[in-house]
Amino acid sequence: MMKKLYFLLFLLASLSVKAQDDAQVIKKMYDEELTNSPIYENLHYLTKEIGNRISGSPQAAAAIEYARQLMLQYDFDTVFLQPVMVPHWVRGEKEQLRIVHSPKIGMEDLNVTAIGNSVGTGPDGITAPVVRVMNFDELNKLGKKNVEGKIVFFDRPFDYTLVNTFAAYSGAVGQRSAGASEAAKLGAVAVVVRSMASQIDDIPHTGALHYQDGVKKIPAVAVSTKDANLLRRLIEGGDTPNLYIRTTCEMKPDVLSYNVVGQLNGTEHPDQYIIVGGHIDSWDVGEGAHDDGGGCMQSIEALRLFKTLGIRPKHSLRAVMFINEENGLRGGKKYAALAKENGEQHLAAIESDRGVFTPKGFAVQDNEAALEKVKSWAPLFAPYLIFEFTEGHGGSDIGPLGTENTVLMGLLPDSQRYFTLHHTSHDVFEAVNPRELKMGAATIASMLYLIDQHGF
Amino acid sequence: MMKKLYFLLFLLASLSVKAQDDAQVIKKMYDEELTNSPIYENLHYLTKEIGNRISGSPQAAAAIEYARQLMLQYDFDTVFLQPVMVPHWVRGEKEQLRIVHSPKIGMEDLNVTAIGNSVGTGPDGITAPVVRVMNFDELNKLGKKNVEGKIVFFDRPFDYTLVNTFAAYSGAVGQRSAGASEAAKLGAVAVVVRSMASQIDDIPHTGALHYQDGVKKIPAVAVSTKDANLLRRLIEGGDTPNLYIRTTCEMKPDVLSYNVVGQLNGTEHPDQYIIVGGHIDSWDVGEGAHDDGGGCMQSIEALRLFKTLGIRPKHSLRAVMFINEENGLRGGKKYAALAKENGEQHLAAIESDRGVFTPKGFAVQDNEAALEKVKSWAPLFAPYLIFEFTEGHGGSDIGPLGTENTVLMGLLPDSQRYFTLHHTSHDVFEAVNPRELKMGAATIASMLYLIDQHGF
Repeated sequence: MMKKLYFLLFLLASLSVKAQDDAQVIKKMYDEELTNSPIYENLHYLTKEIGNRISGSPQAAAAIEYARQLMLQYDFDTVFLQPVMVPHWVRGEKEQLRIVHSPKIGMEDLNVTAIGNSVGTGPDGITAPVVRVMNFDELNKLGKKNVEGKIVFFDRPFDYTLVNTFAAYSGAVGQRSAGASEAAKLGAVAVVVRSMASQIDDIPHTGALHYQDGVKKIPAVAVSTKDANLLRRLIEGGDTPNLYIRTTCEMKPDVLSYNVVGQLNGTEHPDQYIIVGGHIDSWDVGEGAHDDGGGCMQSIEALRLFKTLGIRPKHSLRAVMFINEENGLRGGKKYAALAKENGEQHLAAIESDRGVFTPKGFAVQDNEAALEKVKSWAPLFAPYLIFEFTEGHGGSDIGPLGTENTVLMGLLPDSQRYFTLHHTSHDVFEAVNPRELKMGAATIASMLYLIDQHGF
Repeated sequence: MMKKLYFLLFLLASLSVKAQDDAQVIKKMYDEELTNSPIYENLHYLTKEIGNRISGSPQAAAAIEYARQLMLQYDFDTVFLQPVMVPHWVRGEKEQLRIVHSPKIGMEDLNVTAIGNSVGTGPDGITAPVVRVMNFDELNKLGKKNVEGKIVFFDRPFDYTLVNTFAAYSGAVGQRSAGASEAAKLGAVAVVVRSMASQIDDIPHTGALHYQDGVKKIPAVAVSTKDANLLRRLIEGGDTPNLYIRTTCEMKPDVLSYNVVGQLNGTEHPDQYIIVGGHIDSWDVGEGAHDDGGGCMQSIEALRLFKTLGIRPKHSLRAVMFINEENGLRGGKKYAALAKENGEQHLAAIESDRGVFTPKGFAVQDNEAALEKVKSWAPLFAPYLIFEFTEGHGGSDIGPLGTENTVLMGLLPDSQRYFTLHHTSHDVFEAVNPRELKMGAATIASMLYLIDQHGF
């Protein structure tokens, strides 16, 4: 009995020493990051010198090369490219959306952006009466006789009561991604979608749509929430305005591009990988600072912290810059396919792609045991005011790796501001706070360290 | 034994029903706040129509009247003013701080602001050699022979490794509030203080100083962190530049002003008070949006939530707009004096004066039992991602109430951005996110509700 007790005490003592070691390493990571990190300057270069970087653009190519050079400069053990063909969508001329033939307000231009992957209207534009729906049920109840030849206005707003704004986004984004094909099935000539925004303002939010195979491709635009409200009031007031839409966007042939991977070799299990990533492409408006330049720079920075502090990981760590998250996910799919092809065992994958605001925790996807393990590390994060460890989506780019053999995790930053700037001209360097950015990088590095040390 | 068990089970069941009721009320508060709240529009009026509002200014008077009318409009049971004399400091002409006689860079103007309550240099300004110190120890070691006739440059930066930026502020702010008198004791002619900022930029931060009785009052200015670094480099490089300072600020005679109090009468203990407040005055730069227009509007809004949702409090609830937090604390002192004079029992006082960023929790001041009680409510706040319940400062305005009979609490918002704009021209309406502002108001209302229902 006494022996058992001593053994238990010994076990507790060594655990607590272990936890203390972990706490010390983690403190070093935050301290280094909050004092000496070059991440804010790196993000400045990516956003201000290179700018936004949609797949297939020269800026995307420049960003890939910049990320590669940065990781070489930090002397990572290996830095390599993964070739991948990506779609090349171009926006064309400034889009137009105009209310015409409204007895109430006459002619008026609205704040609009073409939805990514959309076909254009052609140079003459499209003029047609508008019909407003809140969801696909309403659309389908209207049926072909009420939709044919018309422009469908999808007006479902965010549910403001959802504290996590990503949940509100998920509840509304279907009309942007699938609305065009659903409306086209009933003979609509175009769609206008209320922007995916958490507030009422003049900023239109772009984003991707996916055309269903075998369904006619019709043009799709997103209108600012303020102008969506204007349209709503007109229609609810009994007005049935015509809309004029003009876009010249088009999908061009695929372009050769790359994922960029930087690696620190593991000392004990070099053939087992723990990766962290973001996507190096962005929309072609703003500067892709929060989405996802910041996440990319955090991923590289997390590995730089290991290098700088002389921490040799047991498993191989990778920072992965995925290409084409925004309008195709080709990079994420390619990475997973190559991992499978090469028999690479991925212990865990972390993505940072929810903005680079103050980190609050991590989501763990479909893996209760891993979530419990992560929760057991919660006390180590409490000094940094990181308290949220929850079931949830890991990230789009890491999704193709699957949850069977790989724990997928997503960094969870504060979400209140994200959908004021997501996919807009306001997602610029100035919207990023350096301390918030750095806190995220240190939080990721600390999680990598714990996974590397203790596994799942 | 069985009886006891049943009783225990009954107790547990009723407790859990209670918690469910609480959870429902709290959900209603957040839902109402995130959907129908007028708080953002109210803050817009306060910041954009009225503007900044230093004690004694016409804008302060306008803000007091606005707050009064707002609470009358919301039909609070009582709305009243508490007369209080406040200091009236005026900044005068745009301040000047110039490097002169530097062999390295010649003449150069620096980004500067007079420190509040400071005397001016007079129209001719002051020119003198500069001596740099990091703290009062260094200053006193230099002694009179090295300080007399000179301008003392206090250059202590924020400790970036402190996650809570208020801790970094506390560690550095002494040089701003007490530096002038400490330097004057050794014969200095003026002081230049490194701005209280969490990043390196061109924005000077004002704030208050306090002259010690019997010590000569010398002028004091704050320089931007970037220019502080420039000065540091010059001095460390062996240069001993002269500085020219010109300010025309002055303290005028006291002015009659007011605290504004709005009250909902308690149904069971109308003579026991739970209050929430912010300060209606601000610095005379920017718009006092985060500091503390937002906190004032949150305090009023918390009571509006009770009214709108038809929740009658057991104790009397008050929203208090304190005057003169920034450069005298006269309002806070007056409120406490009147409470004592009138024998008003204050159960708890909450202050919102740390910016109106995403709320993370509450600090409870010097009261372990109350902190434990607050922690027992933590599960009710978890759905709103509020996790931080900790020992800490309540707030400046509520401080004079004392902790003996009153639990003092401070709302804790995310602190990473606060000291980029605190006391500067950047503290404007546009820096406030409406959802973050509203989350704070609902969080305060929920805490008021729990204190009212369950006490301490």
